[in-house]
Amino acid sequence: MPSKIDAIAYDDRGLVPVVVQEATTHRVLMLAWMDAEAVRRTRETGRATYWSRSRQAYWVKGETSGHRQQVRELRVDCDGDTLLLVVDQTGPACHTGTETCFDDGLIP
Amino acid sequence: MPSKIDAIAYDDRGLVPVVVQEATTHRVLMLAWMDAEAVRRTRETGRATYWSRSRQAYWVKGETSGHRQQVRELRVDCDGDTLLLVVDQTGPACHTGTETCFDDGLIP
Repeated sequence: MPSKIDAIAYDDRGLVPVVVQEATTHRVLMLAWMDAEAVRRTRETGRATYWSRSRQAYWVKGETSGHRQQVRELRVDCDGDTLLLVVDQTGPACHTGTETCFDDGLIP
Repeated sequence: MPSKIDAIAYDDRGLVPVVVQEATTHRVLMLAWMDAEAVRRTRETGRATYWSRSRQAYWVKGETSGHRQQVRELRVDCDGDTLLLVVDQTGPACHTGTETCFDDGLIP
């Protein structure tokens, strides 16, 4: 039986968006991007590893800040073009220091 | 003061990814896409309206299925390139009949 991992449909840049959700609070922390290698590293290490589109480089979440994401669960959606990564978040997820990247973004 | 809505950074196709979360269960239901007009319609009507990349058309969620999404809250993230839409979901969110689009997608 083929693994669900083969169902991932990367876009024309070889990337897939990843919704990151906190395992305990269920809050949506952020959206990031992975290529196939980032998916591989994330599964192998259990640490969220993304592809930075602005820096064009792999990025282990929390590597410098210490605000790590330990993987609890990885899921792919029904048509393969989005991932859901459920994590245990250490510290704030956002580089601005807020718990999630959406905390200051309410559109009235 | 400029509205947070001016902070939305659409990509080179004029689109922004939208993470959709259920207001009561806090489950992540799906990821969809909006352009500026879909954002406008969503805010004006209180009904989630997306841009279908495959059909190249606006798509009012639940218009045919009845599985509507009533908007509770719309947020933009810290760098403007992702939206979080919190909704009251009627029925299953996924066209496959599952509650979310990630239910059958666990990657072991």
